[in-house]
Amino acid sequence: MKNIAIILVNPQMGENIGAAARAMLNFGITDLRIVNPRDGWPNERATSMSAGAFEVMPEPQLFEGFEDAIADCHTTSATTARLRYMSKPVMTPTAAATDAIERQRSGESIGFVFGGERNGLDNEDIVLCKNIINIPTNPDFSSLNLGQAVLLVAHEVHKAQDSTPPREMLMGESQPVPQARLHEFFERLEGELDKGRFFRAEDLKPTMIRNIRNIFTRNELNEQEVKTLHGIISALIGNKTNGQ
Amino acid sequence: MKNIAIILVNPQMGENIGAAARAMLNFGITDLRIVNPRDGWPNERATSMSAGAFEVMPEPQLFEGFEDAIADCHTTSATTARLRYMSKPVMTPTAAATDAIERQRSGESIGFVFGGERNGLDNEDIVLCKNIINIPTNPDFSSLNLGQAVLLVAHEVHKAQDSTPPREMLMGESQPVPQARLHEFFERLEGELDKGRFFRAEDLKPTMIRNIRNIFTRNELNEQEVKTLHGIISALIGNKTNGQ
Repeated sequence: MKNIAIILVNPQMGENIGAAARAMLNFGITDLRIVNPRDGWPNERATSMSAGAFEVMPEPQLFEGFEDAIADCHTTSATTARLRYMSKPVMTPTAAATDAIERQRSGESIGFVFGGERNGLDNEDIVLCKNIINIPTNPDFSSLNLGQAVLLVAHEVHKAQDSTPPREMLMGESQPVPQARLHEFFERLEGELDKGRFFRAEDLKPTMIRNIRNIFTRNELNEQEVKTLHGIISALIGNKTNGQ
Repeated sequence: MKNIAIILVNPQMGENIGAAARAMLNFGITDLRIVNPRDGWPNERATSMSAGAFEVMPEPQLFEGFEDAIADCHTTSATTARLRYMSKPVMTPTAAATDAIERQRSGESIGFVFGGERNGLDNEDIVLCKNIINIPTNPDFSSLNLGQAVLLVAHEVHKAQDSTPPREMLMGESQPVPQARLHEFFERLEGELDKGRFFRAEDLKPTMIRNIRNIFTRNELNEQEVKTLHGIISALIGNKTNGQ
């Protein structure tokens, strides 16, 4: 994804840098910037936690200071707790990601900024970011680790530019069934039920037919499945005949 | 969160069970069900990866078979790859979570089902689920581990019932500034700029004033910040006077 960067400031554990790299690549973000990693760089533990992400991504960029790491960004979002003493917009990850993709599409470069494990981001760094991302969590168990925070933000950024339909009926080789095939099926089923004296009370018959039709109409049947249901009727008719 | 369960089927690594427990508790889900864990239960590695989640959550329920694990659920969602040969609705995590919370609010119990690390879910188990959740990822680097998949789904479920405003302007002790205070500020600033012969070309003055007013209007200033800006004007006037 162009012009979207993940920026880790003073990260401590290589494992978390590797998990962050894997998470961002899972969602198509490849610009990783690392400011002042405690254990230096490259880092073996990062590589082993990255599930091969570093072999696919461009080399991470290393910076000594935060200001240089965001120098080419137009908008930066600091992932941090809600601050009481700094007047800034606080956004959910969803809202920040939507905003970021809108800005990216109008030509901006966006940086998502994450602090180190122990102390998070310094106020001096947060103040240089345009807005704050706060991830709403269970207040009684709220701690997310660095890799998890990057995963959630990267997922939201991917979603904001993704066109996957929210709900889709997969049918494999088959096709959705046109209504006429359902009507044929109902006629046959209801005819056989009549023969089998299913509708004992004539005045209840319309309601029972409505209920049966509703079961199979609501079901999003495909052509193959209607054939299967016809086969089931045939088999049951056969059973009854054999049984009598 | 009531009536929402996370169901891990044939999980292999205790670490991933622990990460799943942490992730679900982060987002307020506490009903964990484990079907046939490879390394038995309890599991030390699970405990150590859970960041204390097992001390807060009710004890996970263990099952030998999948059917028993979902017996009390009304709707189950299987997290898996897109299947070509089974006719079922495939949903994004966001859509499935929204659907789940709507169902939960009308009294259903919902299970989110995750397969083991090596082979995922069996078709025999998937077929018993009402729908499929597929997490759209980078097709060239799509593998999410079990803990990550649970984290993303739990996050979406939390969001679907969360009322956090998408964007909120935090101001600490201060208050948003009413327009009248901006008008006072503009009058003072523009008066001082006049004195300082800032508006050299009289015909450009209206445009310049518009631009200046726009900078400070767009900015969502609070009362404290307007005071700070007045102080800056005072200081700069002082400097100029001193400097001349």
